[in-house]
Amino acid sequence: MLIVQKYGGTSVGSVERIKEVARRIAKSKEEGNDIVVVVSAMSGETNKLIELANKFSQTPKRREMDLLLSSGERVTSALLAIALTDMGFQTVAMTGRQAGIVTNGMHTKARIEYIDGKYIEKELKKGNMVVVAGFQGITAIGEVSTLGRGGSDLSAVAIAGSLNADLCEIYTDVDGIYTTDPRIEPKAKKLKEISYDEMLELASLGAKVLQTRSVELAKKLNVRLVTRSSFSDDEGTHILREEDIMEKPLVSGIAIDKNQARVTLRGVSDKPGIAAEIFRKLAEDGVNVDMIIQNVGLDGETNLGFTVPKDELGTTKQSMEEINASQSLEFDQEVVKVSVVGVGMKSHSGVACTAFDTLADERINIEMISTSEIKVSMVISEKYGELAVRALHDAYKLDN
Amino acid sequence: MLIVQKYGGTSVGSVERIKEVARRIAKSKEEGNDIVVVVSAMSGETNKLIELANKFSQTPKRREMDLLLSSGERVTSALLAIALTDMGFQTVAMTGRQAGIVTNGMHTKARIEYIDGKYIEKELKKGNMVVVAGFQGITAIGEVSTLGRGGSDLSAVAIAGSLNADLCEIYTDVDGIYTTDPRIEPKAKKLKEISYDEMLELASLGAKVLQTRSVELAKKLNVRLVTRSSFSDDEGTHILREEDIMEKPLVSGIAIDKNQARVTLRGVSDKPGIAAEIFRKLAEDGVNVDMIIQNVGLDGETNLGFTVPKDELGTTKQSMEEINASQSLEFDQEVVKVSVVGVGMKSHSGVACTAFDTLADERINIEMISTSEIKVSMVISEKYGELAVRALHDAYKLDN
Repeated sequence: MLIVQKYGGTSVGSVERIKEVARRIAKSKEEGNDIVVVVSAMSGETNKLIELANKFSQTPKRREMDLLLSSGERVTSALLAIALTDMGFQTVAMTGRQAGIVTNGMHTKARIEYIDGKYIEKELKKGNMVVVAGFQGITAIGEVSTLGRGGSDLSAVAIAGSLNADLCEIYTDVDGIYTTDPRIEPKAKKLKEISYDEMLELASLGAKVLQTRSVELAKKLNVRLVTRSSFSDDEGTHILREEDIMEKPLVSGIAIDKNQARVTLRGVSDKPGIAAEIFRKLAEDGVNVDMIIQNVGLDGETNLGFTVPKDELGTTKQSMEEINASQSLEFDQEVVKVSVVGVGMKSHSGVACTAFDTLADERINIEMISTSEIKVSMVISEKYGELAVRALHDAYKLDN
Repeated sequence: MLIVQKYGGTSVGSVERIKEVARRIAKSKEEGNDIVVVVSAMSGETNKLIELANKFSQTPKRREMDLLLSSGERVTSALLAIALTDMGFQTVAMTGRQAGIVTNGMHTKARIEYIDGKYIEKELKKGNMVVVAGFQGITAIGEVSTLGRGGSDLSAVAIAGSLNADLCEIYTDVDGIYTTDPRIEPKAKKLKEISYDEMLELASLGAKVLQTRSVELAKKLNVRLVTRSSFSDDEGTHILREEDIMEKPLVSGIAIDKNQARVTLRGVSDKPGIAAEIFRKLAEDGVNVDMIIQNVGLDGETNLGFTVPKDELGTTKQSMEEINASQSLEFDQEVVKVSVVGVGMKSHSGVACTAFDTLADERINIEMISTSEIKVSMVISEKYGELAVRALHDAYKLDN
């Protein structure tokens, strides 16, 4: 098999950790696999460099930040290649540039435009293992670029796609994706398999493991992912196409998002174009609107409800002022969004009803509801958030 | 003027030091100069990286070492460019690759093959200051390379040559070249000017300031150098062509080299080809032979004397064993080489005599002598080394 393995910052956070990772890679190589490794900077390094830059400027030039930040992954890739070579495995380290990772010119949050896989393939053909510095690429005019948060995962997924790898293993300090947050529900179980779409809906459950951008890219490139811990030998969670999942459970997991705030605009004219104007303005100002509820109105007026991330409330308020829609603006920060996610919903009715019944049994009021093919999301009062998660986890029997 | 400024590790060794360097650069820019800066890694960084690599391998792969070590200068160049930009000066940082520094493929001690100056020139034309990561380049096939010890100086000199810069300023924590080591002779004076050739002969006096390789390259490219301290505003020492020196003193300085050992081969056949065989073998084995003395022999035999660096004595002994020349090998490690250097010697006779007289007056026995157009070197007993330096410094009136 051709396997791309990605190791995050804590996995390569010390000399001992890098040696442990080298042993893990060696084992997989000895099992007969071809291996491309993608590494992050040693944990803490990137933040250290950012702090250093901030001692010289509060708004450091992005182009130079990329030059600065890209050094962390170069160090790790070189060290790991040195370790593997010392263990007797032919290994070459490659920078983003050398691995053919070409990005656009958006410094500090560049997007991968394409990967020219021939450089890595050439090394694999020579029998080398390849260790690629993650998080970085090069622009068409030769500038060093970095990919922003979760960038090393993106590097790994994109490389796996370009090489048609059989598997892309994402190693972190977390051993997989759980049916819900185990800190809230200790009976939460690790999922063996999950579809890309479910993973995207459960983003908050996987936040420490895998960023949305990487899952989206894996789906697009049809890269089979597995998230595993580099601190244990446990099987991780596979993330793959829905059609490749063996058993399709009704519900895969319960997610809770505590970062949402509810916004209500009362007495909005019930005319075509008004909602469009409001949400266009919010989009222009970079506010990430999540759920939107508009009820049928009375007397030509209606109430418009939506949720935004808590830290974007200030911007939201300002945007509404700028289009004179702030007179009747109400905020509620003390809410959470609880979501029930599962591809089984597509073929089974009644899944949403179970959710509503469960919350009703607990006397929890549902303030907003939105649904998709594979998800039911409910905004409820913050104080009932964890109770709701546990009740729903029970109701869908996710603990067995 | 177009000035290339190079700042060594201690000059950029901390956030405060980098800010100080930025102020210095800003001042020179405000005086109307175009400026290209070459930086080393922050002091200690390169050693830290080497130690890190050695935790994984005692013989780390050179190619990967270059990837690792090149990161230190990238960090400094990015930070300094961020600092200058924040002060309101348009500045771009460039890696060795981006600055067009092309080297051969000898990893960890690559030689610069050429510099394509158009990349830096393009930025200068846009009104930018350019901060180049020193010590590094790229090979013809796109591999990252480093230039070995003193590599950042080489980068600076080579860039100054390729841009036809008016001046190349080498900033360290030492304020110039002295007539002799001030720790031995407190009356030593800083030289205002010195020729390339004198500087090469006085290498030991400038060892902390400038490596031989850089002086040789500056001479070849006719780059006017000045070595200055980044910790003061003192004028430094200019290193330039002999014909550009205003006043040519008879003697410029007295150097002492404590790292030489004397080797004597007794009873060597006084036949053509024997000496050649010995020194060819030593060259093949990488021994740097300095002085060589062969006297006229008696009875078809002669004594052959030469000096080698103390730490190459072991190799020397082994080499002599391999060609069966070790039977009559003698070593003397307790010697030093004292050299009197000055371009004035070319046109004035009697300079060497003064040296011999001076040592005779002090009752110091001269064991070996070698001379060049601008230098008289004498091997003497180690215990008289400092006395000899002081006596010669006095004899040539170097203190005024």
